[in-house]
Amino acid sequence: MKLHEIARFVDGNLLGDGEVVIERICPIEEAGAGDLTFLANPQYRKRLKEIRASAVLIASEPPGEASGVNFIIVPDPYVALGKLLAVFYPEDRIPSGISQNAFLEEGAIIATEAAICAGVTVCKGARIERGAVLYPGVFVGPEAVIGEDSILYPNVCIYRKCLIGRRVILHAGVVIGSDGFGFANPGVDNLKIPQVGFVQIDDDVEIGANTTIDRGTLGKTWVKRGVKIDNLVQIAHNVVVGEKSVIVSQVGIAGSTKLGRSVIIGGQAGLVGHIAIGDNVMIGAKSGIHESIADGQVVSGHPQLPHKEWLRVAASLSRLPEMRKSQAVLLEKIAKLEEEMRKIKNHEDSCHSNSSTRG
Amino acid sequence: MKLHEIARFVDGNLLGDGEVVIERICPIEEAGAGDLTFLANPQYRKRLKEIRASAVLIASEPPGEASGVNFIIVPDPYVALGKLLAVFYPEDRIPSGISQNAFLEEGAIIATEAAICAGVTVCKGARIERGAVLYPGVFVGPEAVIGEDSILYPNVCIYRKCLIGRRVILHAGVVIGSDGFGFANPGVDNLKIPQVGFVQIDDDVEIGANTTIDRGTLGKTWVKRGVKIDNLVQIAHNVVVGEKSVIVSQVGIAGSTKLGRSVIIGGQAGLVGHIAIGDNVMIGAKSGIHESIADGQVVSGHPQLPHKEWLRVAASLSRLPEMRKSQAVLLEKIAKLEEEMRKIKNHEDSCHSNSSTRG
Amino acid sequence: MKLHEIARFVDGNLLGDGEVVIERICPIEEAGAGDLTFLANPQYRKRLKEIRASAVLIASEPPGEASGVNFIIVPDPYVALGKLLAVFYPEDRIPSGISQNAFLEEGAIIATEAAICAGVTVCKGARIERGAVLYPGVFVGPEAVIGEDSILYPNVCIYRKCLIGRRVILHAGVVIGSDGFGFANPGVDNLKIPQVGFVQIDDDVEIGANTTIDRGTLGKTWVKRGVKIDNLVQIAHNVVVGEKSVIVSQVGIAGSTKLGRSVIIGGQAGLVGHIAIGDNVMIGAKSGIHESIADGQVVSGHPQLPHKEWLRVAASLSRLPEMRKSQAVLLEKIAKLEEEMRKIKNHEDSCHSNSSTRG
Repeated sequence: MKLHEIARFVDGNLLGDGEVVIERICPIEEAGAGDLTFLANPQYRKRLKEIRASAVLIASEPPGEASGVNFIIVPDPYVALGKLLAVFYPEDRIPSGISQNAFLEEGAIIATEAAICAGVTVCKGARIERGAVLYPGVFVGPEAVIGEDSILYPNVCIYRKCLIGRRVILHAGVVIGSDGFGFANPGVDNLKIPQVGFVQIDDDVEIGANTTIDRGTLGKTWVKRGVKIDNLVQIAHNVVVGEKSVIVSQVGIAGSTKLGRSVIIGGQAGLVGHIAIGDNVMIGAKSGIHESIADGQVVSGHPQLPHKEWLRVAASLSRLPEMRKSQAVLLEKIAKLEEEMRKIKNHEDSCHSNSSTRG
Repeated sequence: MKLHEIARFVDGNLLGDGEVVIERICPIEEAGAGDLTFLANPQYRKRLKEIRASAVLIASEPPGEASGVNFIIVPDPYVALGKLLAVFYPEDRIPSGISQNAFLEEGAIIATEAAICAGVTVCKGARIERGAVLYPGVFVGPEAVIGEDSILYPNVCIYRKCLIGRRVILHAGVVIGSDGFGFANPGVDNLKIPQVGFVQIDDDVEIGANTTIDRGTLGKTWVKRGVKIDNLVQIAHNVVVGEKSVIVSQVGIAGSTKLGRSVIIGGQAGLVGHIAIGDNVMIGAKSGIHESIADGQVVSGHPQLPHKEWLRVAASLSRLPEMRKSQAVLLEKIAKLEEEMRKIKNHEDSCHSNSSTRG
Repeated sequence: MKLHEIARFVDGNLLGDGEVVIERICPIEEAGAGDLTFLANPQYRKRLKEIRASAVLIASEPPGEASGVNFIIVPDPYVALGKLLAVFYPEDRIPSGISQNAFLEEGAIIATEAAICAGVTVCKGARIERGAVLYPGVFVGPEAVIGEDSILYPNVCIYRKCLIGRRVILHAGVVIGSDGFGFANPGVDNLKIPQVGFVQIDDDVEIGANTTIDRGTLGKTWVKRGVKIDNLVQIAHNVVVGEKSVIVSQVGIAGSTKLGRSVIIGGQAGLVGHIAIGDNVMIGAKSGIHESIADGQVVSGHPQLPHKEWLRVAASLSRLPEMRKSQAVLLEKIAKLEEEMRKIKNHEDSCHSNSSTRG
C-alpha cells in the first residue's frame, strides 16, 4: 500500500513522499525501511530522531529535526493505527463447520455457518447462531445462547441459560454464569442461597482472559452493549455494567452494584455491593469504592475521594512523619511559651499588686 | 405452591391471603402477579410502595402503606429465600454415567453412579466416588480423589494426589494443586524447590471460578469443612483455612499462613505468609495483613489496624492536606509569638536592669 | 538414603549419627522417625524442642537443648531442601507419544519424543519440540512454538504465533497471547485496536495457574530467561520482564512497562503502563507504582515511596486521628496565647504611653 493511499484511507495529511510503499506496521523501535509506525504517547516524541521507519502516524506537525521521515498527520494516531492494522493484518477466521470431535447434546441448535471446533460441548437447548466461532474446550450450558459472529476462545465456559449477544469476544478461560457468592449467616452456617438467575452479555462486548462473571441470584447480571472488560476481572451477581463502560484488569465489583454508561474503572479497583455509579464516572486504579458516585465524577483512593483531593492527600502522605515530628516540636514550643506567659502574668500580677500596695 | 404452604415451609408469619398461588421467585424490580420476592437489604425497604409482587418475604412487619401486598414475616428473609429457591428451582443434575468420550487412564477407579462427561480426563490411581459430577474438560490427576456428590464444573484441574471431599463444589476453571511458588535465592538463582505435597479440600466446601490453590511444598495445603471461597482467589502452599471461613473474591493468602475457624476476609485483601489468624476474625476488603491477629478481632487497612481505628484514620486522611497547611500556619504563628516573647523578655530584662540600676 | 550420604550430597556438615536411614522429607510438624525436615524460617527455631524427626537441615549450629536429633548444617537449608526433594520425589513424567484423542491440524509439527495428551489441540503451522509435555485441554494456536522439555499443564491456552522457550513450565489455565486491552476513545467509541503482535517466553520461565499474558499490539510482549511468575498475575501488551525477575501472585503490570533484570514484585502490586523499572528493584506487596524506578531501589506504598520512608508513613498513619486532635488543641492554645500576647502588648503600650505622658 502506498503512503498516499494510506493517508487517504485514514483521512490524514501527508507530509513527504506519497509513492513510498508500506509493507508492515511496526513498533517504533523495530520499524525500518518499508515500515509504518505511530507516535501516540507524547513521552515517545523525543524519540523522533531515532526513527528509521519509512513513515509515522502523528498527531501534529513534527519538529524540523525529523526531516528524513515521511509523516501522516491525523487527529488521533491510535485510531488511525487501529484502522490500518485491520487492513494490513486481517484476522484469520476459522472456517465454519462442526468438528466431528465436538460434543453436541441432543436438542442443541447450531447454525450451519457457525464454527464449532473439536472438544467443544454444546448442551441441550443451547443455541449457537451463524458466524459464531467456538474454539476447542468451550462449554455452552443448557439453554444458553451465543449470538451471531461472537468468538469464544479456548476453554471459555458459559453456564446454563446465559445469553451472549452478537459480535461478542470472550477470551480464553472466561467464565460466564458461575454461581454468585451468596451464603446466609456467613461464618456460622454458610447456608448456600441457590443462584437461579443468569448472565446477559449484550452486543459488541469484549471480555479478557480468565475474567469471571457470576449469574444473578434472581434475575440477571447484565453487561450492556459495547462494554470492554480486561483480564482477571470479577463481576459479582446482579451487577449491571452500563453501555460502553471500560473495566481494566483485576477490578472487582461486588453484588448488585449498578454502573452507568461510559464508566471507566482503573486496574485493581474494588467496588462494594449495592451502590450506584453514575454515567461517565472515572475511578482511579486501586481505588476502594464504598459509596455511590454521581454522574461525571472522577474518584480515587481508598477510602474514595474526589480525584484532585486524593492527589493532594497522596502528596501530603509522604510528609506525614515529618508533620508528626513538627507537631511534637510545636507542642514543646507552645508548652514553653505557655510557661513563659504564665511567668509574665505572675510577674505582672505581682507588679500590679505591688503597685496597688504602693498605691 | 400456595402462600400458606410457603409460610409453613419457611416457618414464617403470613400477613394476607394464604390462597394466593406463587409461580416464580423474582427480584423486587421484576416481580409481578404470581411472583414472590424478598426484602433483605434494609436500603430497599423504601421501595415497598413500588412492589407489584403477589408476596414478599420480609424481616419485620411492614408499614401500613404497602397494604395491597401479602407478606411472610421471617427472622431472616435471605435464609427463607434460600430454602424456597431450592424447592422452586431444583438443580438439573446430570444423569450418572461415563461418557464414551471421556479419557480414562487404566487404573482410574470410577463409581458407577458418578457422571463423567465428554472430554474429562481421569488419570491412573485416581478415584471418583458415587454421585460426583465431572463436567467437560475436567482433569483429575494421578491418585487424586473426588468425594461423593461433589461437582466439578468445566475445565477444573485437580493435580496429582489432591483430595477433594464430599459435596464439594468447584466452579469452572478452578485449579487445585498447582506448584507452590517456591524458589531459593529469588532474583539471583530462582532455584525451583520441588513442590511434593498436596491439597486437601474437606466436605461441603465451595470454591469460585478461576480460583487457584497451590499444593504444599511438603505436606498439605488444607481447606477445612464448610469453607466458602469466591472467584479469583489465590491460596498459596501450606496455607490452612479453618472451618466455615468465608473468603471473598480476589483475596490472596501467602504461604504457610493459618486461618482459624469462621474467619471472614473481604475482597482484594492480602495476607503475608507465615502468620496466624485467630477464630472469628474479620478482615476488611483491600486490607494488607502482615501480622498475626488474635481471635475475634476486626481488622482493616494497609498496614492493618483495628477496624474502628482504621475508620478514624480513613476519616482523617482527607483532612491531611488541610492539616499540613494548618501546621505551616501554626509554625508561623509560633515563630511570631516566640519573637514577641523574646522582645517582652528583653524589655523586662532591661526594665529590671533599669530598676536595679535605679535601685 | 543414609544421613552421611545426604550430608555429602548437599555439601553440609553432619552433626550426629551418619548411619541413620532417611525415608521421607516432611514438614516439621509431621516429621517422625526416619524423616528429614528443615528449618528455614527463623521464627520456627523456637520449635526445635518439639522435633521428632530423625534429622534436620539447619543454617547454623543448633543450641544444646535439641541434643536428641541429628543435624545437617548447610549455608541455605531451603536450597539443600530443593536438591533433596528432587532426588527423593522424582517427577512422574508422562511418557512421550501422541494420544489418538488429540486434535492435530494438518501442518502441525510434533516431535516424536513429545507427549501430547487426549483433548489437546495443535493448530496448523504450530511446532512442538522434543520432550515437551502437553496435558489434556491444552490449546496451541497457529504458528505457535513450544520449546524442548516445556510442560503445559491442563487447559493452558497459547494463542497464534506465540513462542514458548525450553524448559518452560506453564501451570493449569495459563493464557498466553490473548488480545491486549487496546481501545481508542475509551468510554466513547471503544474502537478496538487489532492486536497483531505476539508473546515470547524465554527458556526456564515458570508461570503460575490462571495467569494471563497479553500479546503485543505490534511486536512482542516478552518474558525473559529464568523469570518466575506466580498465579493470577496480569501482564499487559508489550510489557518486557527482565531476566530472573520474580512476580508474586495477583500483580498487574499495564501496557508497555519494561522491567529490568532480577526485579522482585510483591503480591497484589500494580504498575501503570509506559514506565521503566530498573535492575534489582524490589517492589512491596500491594504497592501502586506510577513512576519509573532506578536500579536497585526498594519501593513500597500507593503512591510509591522509598520503602523505608513508606515504613515511617505507615507507622505514622495510625497516629493521624490523634494528630488531628492535637492540632485542634494547638490551634486553641495558640489563639489563647495570641490573645494574651495582645493584652500584654496593649498593657505595655498603655504603660509606655503612661510613662511617656508622665515623662
